[in-house]
Formats: sequence, structure tokens, C-alpha cells
Amino acid sequence: MANSASGDSVVDRIVRIIEAFPEGSTSLRLSELAGTTGLPLSSAHRLVRQLADHGLLELGTGGNVRLGLRLWELVNRNSPTLALRQAALPFMEDIQQVLNQNVNLAVLDGWEALFVERLSRRGSVANRARIAGRMPVHISSAGLALMASQPRELQAEYLTQFSDPAGKVTADVVRHLLAETAQLGYAQLAGVVDPDTWGIAVPVTDGKQGTVAALGVVVPLAEMRLQALVPALQTAARGIARQLGEQRNSGLLRNA
Amino acid sequence: MANSASGDSVVDRIVRIIEAFPEGSTSLRLSELAGTTGLPLSSAHRLVRQLADHGLLELGTGGNVRLGLRLWELVNRNSPTLALRQAALPFMEDIQQVLNQNVNLAVLDGWEALFVERLSRRGSVANRARIAGRMPVHISSAGLALMASQPRELQAEYLTQFSDPAGKVTADVVRHLLAETAQLGYAQLAGVVDPDTWGIAVPVTDGKQGTVAALGVVVPLAEMRLQALVPALQTAARGIARQLGEQRNSGLLRNA
Repeated sequence: MANSASGDSVVDRIVRIIEAFPEGSTSLRLSELAGTTGLPLSSAHRLVRQLADHGLLELGTGGNVRLGLRLWELVNRNSPTLALRQAALPFMEDIQQVLNQNVNLAVLDGWEALFVERLSRRGSVANRARIAGRMPVHISSAGLALMASQPRELQAEYLTQFSDPAGKVTADVVRHLLAETAQLGYAQLAGVVDPDTWGIAVPVTDGKQGTVAALGVVVPLAEMRLQALVPALQTAARGIARQLGEQRNSGLLRNA
Repeated sequence: MANSASGDSVVDRIVRIIEAFPEGSTSLRLSELAGTTGLPLSSAHRLVRQLADHGLLELGTGGNVRLGLRLWELVNRNSPTLALRQAALPFMEDIQQVLNQNVNLAVLDGWEALFVERLSRRGSVANRARIAGRMPVHISSAGLALMASQPRELQAEYLTQFSDPAGKVTADVVRHLLAETAQLGYAQLAGVVDPDTWGIAVPVTDGKQGTVAALGVVVPLAEMRLQALVPALQTAARGIARQLGEQRNSGLLRNA
């Protein structure tokens, strides 16, 4: 693989360009892009031109660069989360219809919950377009539901980051949260973004693959009815797991 | 830029790998990937490994390759269609609630309509995860609505592909469809996927940028009520255009 004088490969540089776009900012000036990626302007320009030739980026007038429609299309038509989202969406819609709450679906990626689908409460659809957000495990109910059902060794590895006894969050606190979640079978946590809401999440556990996702709702504190929410979520989670198994068995989704 | 012996650049090869995944097939064996891209197995393997190191691909046990969750995340958090979808979703939900029909939103890309968002009729959410589909302009109402409001020169260029008088579809037929669409202010076309359905679409026209999208519904023939559908779609399309203008003016979406 060809490397530049600084030793980074073309692949590295392409990755840095795609990663350079901060969340929600759809376009960057070429000069900003060069600055963020640490690439010389001429190299950045050449790479952007090449990627734009293939539609992976779009290079507008005035040097504005954005991710290309073609890249969006390629990634979304073969989304790595497609099988999971297809299995989950009908059940998420059931939850939304019955409980009229925001419903979300997350997977564990590193030490974070990555939200792969979201249905908003009726009348608040504006958030729908914003998926692909992340939350650290210990401050999100989805994260706790995902981590609490991972193998013991992974949990131990995860907890090492809280080993500083003077840290704001200690390993004991997080261990306690995980143990509680595992014992109850669901996670509950006060909302971080909005303190007047609670998040409740349950694991989606597939007999063959273990816990593959967390299904959760975000509920205004005043409407918190654990007795109603948890059984509904658990029922839906079982439905999602069964659907995933059926998709796999029927070979509907090749190798998925 | 470093080229291989065959003269293609690393960028070309990466693009070929990302493009190699056929629609709906989330994973490919490494050997299939090498075959489809025309890359030697060793080169394909090396590139896949490098892309997998960054999370852009995932290389599973047994040589299964899939698009990476990280790539999905990067593209979706900065989707080039984000501003449009955010502006359109509340209005699409209105249409879905009031008319209870499948609603879709498309943009023109080349000579095709690319569907960037879709809401399904209640009770048929399975389709929801499948966006990023394409339809040729002349066989989709969204495509006709998009093309009919493009500048005359672009339309003329588009029509040249139908110049073969012995072709199945002649330029005259398509020209007539476009003229009719422009005159009516909406496109209507019998369903291609399902002949018992009709597609109706209207352009979303922004004063500054021209026609940026098409908003459409797919309706069972038995429920076809043009008098109700078209005004609802046109009203929603105006709302979307106004919202896009407001987003731009407020600078909510930087450079979008």
C-alpha cells in the first residue's frame, strides 16, 4: 500500500476525510477539511476530487465539500443494521402506538450504545432523521441493558476505565448499576439530555447470538409507569429476537 | 496518487469494494468480493483489512465481509439528505396520518429518482428500513415530477437516451409524460412494482434552489382519489419548501 511521506496510507487519509465532518454539519470548506484532517491542502484537494469523481463526496462551488449522495445510497441500501432494523421496526411501531412514547433501538459498539433506529412520539417527528447518535454505556439505559448481558470478561474489561478512585464515576457505582440491571432484567436511568425524562431499556437476546440490541423508551417522569412499560418492552424484545431467528433460518438475508 | 500495475488508484479500488455489495445483501465472502471487484485476492484482502481496521468494513470469521457499523454511523450522522429529510418528515407524517397511504420522498440523481425517505401505511412498516432505492425517471411518478420541473436543456439531454425510434419507449412518449406532468403540476403513473397501485407525486420547489425533491404517495387503485390526494401533497410540498428556506436562513444547518 502506498504511503505518503508522513507514513499514513491512502486508506488512512480517506478515513480521516470521511470522519472529519462533525455531527449535523453537512458540509465543510476544503480549507477546514485540510485543517481537521491534518492533510496538506493540495493532497486534501486531490483526494476530495477523486472521491467526488465517484460520488462519495460532493465538491460544490466555492470549495464546499459534503458527503456524497452516492455514498449515502451505497451504505443505506446495504446497511449493516438492516436485518436488525427490519426485524425490529414493526415491534417498535407497536410500542409507539400502544404507549405513545419515543422508542429507540441501540447496539453496543465499543463502550457506547449506538442508536440505529428511533421512532418518535406522535407529533414530535423532528427527531426521526437523527439516528446514528451515541451515548456512553453508564449514562444510558440502552447502554446498561446492553452491557449487563455481556460476558463477565467483557464487563470486567469495560470497568477498568473507571479504576481511578478519585474519578467522578467509580467502578463500584457502574458495577452496581450493571448488577441491578441484570437482576431486574431491564435498565432505568434518569434522562441525561432532559432531566425530566426517564429511559427504560431491555435487552434483545437471541438464543444463538446473545444480546444483539437494546429496545428502549424515553418517558416523561410524570408518565412513568414501570408496570406497563417493562412488560410491553420485554414482549416486543422477544418478538424481535424471534423475527431475527426466522430471518436467519429462512435465509431471507444472506449471511445476515 | 499511487496506482497499481493495472493503473487504477487506491481510491478506485476502495470505491469498487464499497460498490460491490448488491442491494439487500449485507455480507459477501472475501473471494466473491475479489471476483466482483476484479481485484487479486491478496489485494482485496489487504484493502479489506485496512478498511476493517478503521471500522469501515467488518471482516468476520470465515472471510465474510460486510459494510461496517462505523461507516454507517459516519454517513448517517452527516447524511447529505439530512436537511431535506428533517424538513420533510413532519409533513410526510401528516400525509401518512391523514391519508393513511405510503408516502415517499425522492431526489433526482442522474436520470433516476433516488428515494431518500419513506413512511409506510400503518400496519405495513416492514418496508420502512428499505430506503435508498432507485427508479428510472420515466417509470416513476416521483421521477416525472422531478424531471418535469428541470431546465429545458437538462430535459433535452435526458430525452436523447430515447432517440432510438425502434426502442420500447420513444422520446415522444416521455416528452408527452413530462409535458402533461408540468401542465397538471403533478405526476401520476400506474405502479410498476404492483400494477394495482398508482403513484402520485408533486415537486417540492424552493424559490432559491428550484425543484429539490418530489413528494409522493403510492395508492391502491381502489382508493385513488385525486381530488383529495393532490391538494394534500401540494400543501405538504409547500410546507417542506418553506421549512427548508427557514432552516437555511436560520443557519441551523451550516452551509446546507
